Amino acid sequence: MLIPRREIDFHLYDVLSAAALCDEPRYAAHDRQVFDAILDAAERIAADCFAPHAAACDRDEPALRDGRVWLLPETREALDAYNAAGFGAATFDRADGGMQLPELVGQAAGAMFAGANVAFLSYAMLTAGAARLIASFGSPAQRARYVAPMLEGRFFGTMCLSEPQAGSSLADVRTLATPQPDGGWRMNGSKMWISGGEHELAENIVHLVLARTPDAPPGVRGISLFAVPRRRIDGDGRCGADNDVRLVGLNHKMGWRGTVNTALSFGERGECTAELVGEEGHGLPQMFQMMNAARISVGMNAVALGYSGYLHALAYARERPQGRPLSARVPASPPVPILRHGDVRRMLLAQKAWVEGGLALVLYSARLADEIACAGDDDAARAARGLLELLTPVAKSWPAEYCLEANKLAIQVHGGYGYTRDYPVERLYRDNRLNHIHEGTWGIHGLDLLGRKAAMDGGAALSELAARITATVQRAAADQSLAEQARALAAALDELRRTTGTLLAAAADDPERGLLYATPYLDATGHVIVAWRWLEQALAARALQAAGRGGPDFLAGKLAACRYFCRCELPRAVATFAQLRALDDTPLAIPDAGF
Amino acid sequence: MLIPRREIDFHLYDVLSAAALCDEPRYAAHDRQVFDAILDAAERIAADCFAPHAAACDRDEPALRDGRVWLLPETREALDAYNAAGFGAATFDRADGGMQLPELVGQAAGAMFAGANVAFLSYAMLTAGAARLIASFGSPAQRARYVAPMLEGRFFGTMCLSEPQAGSSLADVRTLATPQPDGGWRMNGSKMWISGGEHELAENIVHLVLARTPDAPPGVRGISLFAVPRRRIDGDGRCGADNDVRLVGLNHKMGWRGTVNTALSFGERGECTAELVGEEGHGLPQMFQMMNAARISVGMNAVALGYSGYLHALAYARERPQGRPLSARVPASPPVPILRHGDVRRMLLAQKAWVEGGLALVLYSARLADEIACAGDDDAARAARGLLELLTPVAKSWPAEYCLEANKLAIQVHGGYGYTRDYPVERLYRDNRLNHIHEGTWGIHGLDLLGRKAAMDGGAALSELAARITATVQRAAADQSLAEQARALAAALDELRRTTGTLLAAAADDPERGLLYATPYLDATGHVIVAWRWLEQALAARALQAAGRGGPDFLAGKLAACRYFCRCELPRAVATFAQLRALDDTPLAIPDAGF
Repeated sequence: MLIPRREIDFHLYDVLSAAALCDEPRYAAHDRQVFDAILDAAERIAADCFAPHAAACDRDEPALRDGRVWLLPETREALDAYNAAGFGAATFDRADGGMQLPELVGQAAGAMFAGANVAFLSYAMLTAGAARLIASFGSPAQRARYVAPMLEGRFFGTMCLSEPQAGSSLADVRTLATPQPDGGWRMNGSKMWISGGEHELAENIVHLVLARTPDAPPGVRGISLFAVPRRRIDGDGRCGADNDVRLVGLNHKMGWRGTVNTALSFGERGECTAELVGEEGHGLPQMFQMMNAARISVGMNAVALGYSGYLHALAYARERPQGRPLSARVPASPPVPILRHGDVRRMLLAQKAWVEGGLALVLYSARLADEIACAGDDDAARAARGLLELLTPVAKSWPAEYCLEANKLAIQVHGGYGYTRDYPVERLYRDNRLNHIHEGTWGIHGLDLLGRKAAMDGGAALSELAARITATVQRAAADQSLAEQARALAAALDELRRTTGTLLAAAADDPERGLLYATPYLDATGHVIVAWRWLEQALAARALQAAGRGGPDFLAGKLAACRYFCRCELPRAVATFAQLRALDDTPLAIPDAGF
Repeated sequence: MLIPRREIDFHLYDVLSAAALCDEPRYAAHDRQVFDAILDAAERIAADCFAPHAAACDRDEPALRDGRVWLLPETREALDAYNAAGFGAATFDRADGGMQLPELVGQAAGAMFAGANVAFLSYAMLTAGAARLIASFGSPAQRARYVAPMLEGRFFGTMCLSEPQAGSSLADVRTLATPQPDGGWRMNGSKMWISGGEHELAENIVHLVLARTPDAPPGVRGISLFAVPRRRIDGDGRCGADNDVRLVGLNHKMGWRGTVNTALSFGERGECTAELVGEEGHGLPQMFQMMNAARISVGMNAVALGYSGYLHALAYARERPQGRPLSARVPASPPVPILRHGDVRRMLLAQKAWVEGGLALVLYSARLADEIACAGDDDAARAARGLLELLTPVAKSWPAEYCLEANKLAIQVHGGYGYTRDYPVERLYRDNRLNHIHEGTWGIHGLDLLGRKAAMDGGAALSELAARITATVQRAAADQSLAEQARALAAALDELRRTTGTLLAAAADDPERGLLYATPYLDATGHVIVAWRWLEQALAARALQAAGRGGPDFLAGKLAACRYFCRCELPRAVATFAQLRALDDTPLAIPDAGF
């Protein structure tokens, strides 16, 4: 089930002023009608070409047949429709053949596809990520050779970072690129967990590969970025001979099965040609620029999976009769829909608070990226960039956690039926479990947030966040119906700032101890940020109420979810902050043999 | 991986004085050597016959082949070994052909089998449950006909409660048993979610079926319990003709796949004979007597799955090199085992605190059941019975939640590998997701705890719990190294009592509102009880330290996990209690169309 347009429109136009983006020169060619048409098209293609095959591509997962990767045939049909409608090029610059749409609109469209069939969407997301890298760092010749065919869907792309011995620790990458007398490079090594690494969906697959170069310094400074096409490309852009990239095997996952996941070997015959993209030794920072955008998309995928589960649970709760209300337990009376039971309503409201809060967080991050794309280099722009850097690990990891919890509750609402493969919620739960692992694990993002982003520039990004939250608190405090939530958020923000100070001071003395609970810190910080985005939704809802627009039940639902989040979720974060300030070191102190 | 014997022995002998049970007449035939021999046998059979097929029975799930249920052939071999060693009869009375072992020892043995292969074990658990019902409520003739063959494993058993339209709401059961002129009954109706409902593992399958009788009052008072063999049994105990029980279909689950789960139809040809077990109209209370024991076993299954995941994660963390310590990030230095990383240690310690805390909770409940089995009918016995009733929903649901969370972290420790079917942790996670659903859902147990158990006899059971916790707190407060945890537990207990009073007072006015957050109440109450069982483990560890016994690292691990639980887990419960006392009613207030 797809996120309702009413919900998307509320975020875009009532909370995040999407239409105002068209006042910026970068987006001046668009207006709300264009955005709406894009979302209409996304909704239609997602519903027609993606959603109907989500169960099938899970059941009939990619397989090796006669030495080739077999995928459900509808994979190609769906991606052809996606690319034909221009979604592959949606947010790319016009100069690269893109539509130059705001990231905000691109993410909203992505939510439709991800909710319908995240496994199909992944091929397109990986291709966009790879194309983005070449568009950002490639030479004019590389841009011409690769970017246009990738945006059209003629070439697909991958990101080749991990190796069997190097997952989170990219400093240990061993794949080696060796310069050749002709000015080119030869690639040799093994890559692991490569989604979309081999298939017959496109004329070519462009692998973006992190590799060391001879005599490069150890660690991440020795890593460079290369483009490695599966088939060599001649001077006229035609794909020819095999480029010595071999499929070693397929990984068989718990979920997200419709996306083929591979182990690849480069240059076993010594004939794998590669092109350096950008500067030698700059591979990792270049890759991370793209990965930051990808991480926001991972957050959106988590949201879309959680949201889809919520909608299924809600529909089931409306139609499934079972039991009687606690206040009227007359056996002879007919059973009521389970939506009438308090515990079911609690589980649905928790899901709503998580998935719509996650959606608000991810879309706000995308809006911020658009602001930055339009801005110059003044103080305000620098502040926005810092804030987006701070939000990125949260926008990736908070939905990965809480939208997975939403999927857990969606199964629970279905009872025994939800545990069977006849209903989609168990698949969504399996799919969503990946989001804490790929594009940087949960723990990596915790360290990134506390050890890097919260500390950078003397805590400037956190100050910017606090200033923006405080502005929201002040607006909400003026509305008596939101004053309780405003007070709760202000208090939680204070806890966040105090806790950050305590932990960073401890980390300055002893990083192991100060950063030990970075992951729970991320979790609690996410709650503060999501509570803020809920209060912004509540303010927008109140404004619509005052204007007599927006549908009374929809707005009442928004206000209820905001209240629920501030009352029932935010206190968990406050408790976590208090615990973190105690600087417990038990996990470090326990002897290894004591586990 | 199986729970280490050192861990089991610690709970049995150092915390729960298992050997003292042999002073009771009921268990006088046993001694510690007997218990140890039982556990040795359980460990051996679990390792040899259960564990090696856990992955295979998940991959090659039960299927219909030529009209028959096909199971992995090793299912039968494993259960034959289990029954040949007497485990089917372990805790049954000697008069029924059992070994009359304490429930405590039976559960400890069960933990071995469940950790090895919970899907295989389920056939035995269902058979034992059905046999227990007939042993408790059947006529002498029924006991003779059914119980002995079931304990030997010649007959298997099932529990047939749910129907397609009646899951949690057994008041709506429609299956009808009609009395016949010969004094027997004919059964007609459909049952759903019947585990072990059809297979070729045994000579016969004895279905224990809840059904209405003609003219019975509506609701649960109209439900009776019947034994329905798959094949009719003649006067000499021989199994003959088909008894008109038809397999309608198999349910295909997310996990726990090795246990066949069926929809059954009784009496489509009007030829399904049934025997009334116990009194007409008493079906549900009879069933619940047995289900209470089954619920403790469900808790143990959850613990065993969580514990197995923890052991896998720990082994992986010890051997997987990746990255460098935060305090020594020198790229040229070799990578360290991930056990050296603070966040990995935190995840392992959280798993340890949950799974060993859950183990302590379930084994304590079993120990209490043994006390009750030995007791008369004095005040102390009544108090113990009330306490066990109070603990039962917690012993079932708390492990279902937190040992599932442990499995989630076990995947996380493995990174991308943990998400693949090449490693067992994703299967354990899928298996464990069932435990919140079967044998009463999470929400049902929340209502049972707060609406029934906490309120019964003027709160007597909660007072008994508080008295026992307080006694532990006093002992721990006398040990300076445990004083912090003792204070935390005392404060949390106080919060539990205050919150219970507030919620029950509210429920007296308005049950919908007072019981709205019964599930989070169960969750937080579980944390208090588990913290208590951690403090008992810590006290036992301190006593062993003082005696110079028990292995220093093992004991240091116990003390660390107790400290971690009290510092990092218990505050969550305290925050939940504070939130519950605010009596938020948002889930009830939100309009249906606001979701």
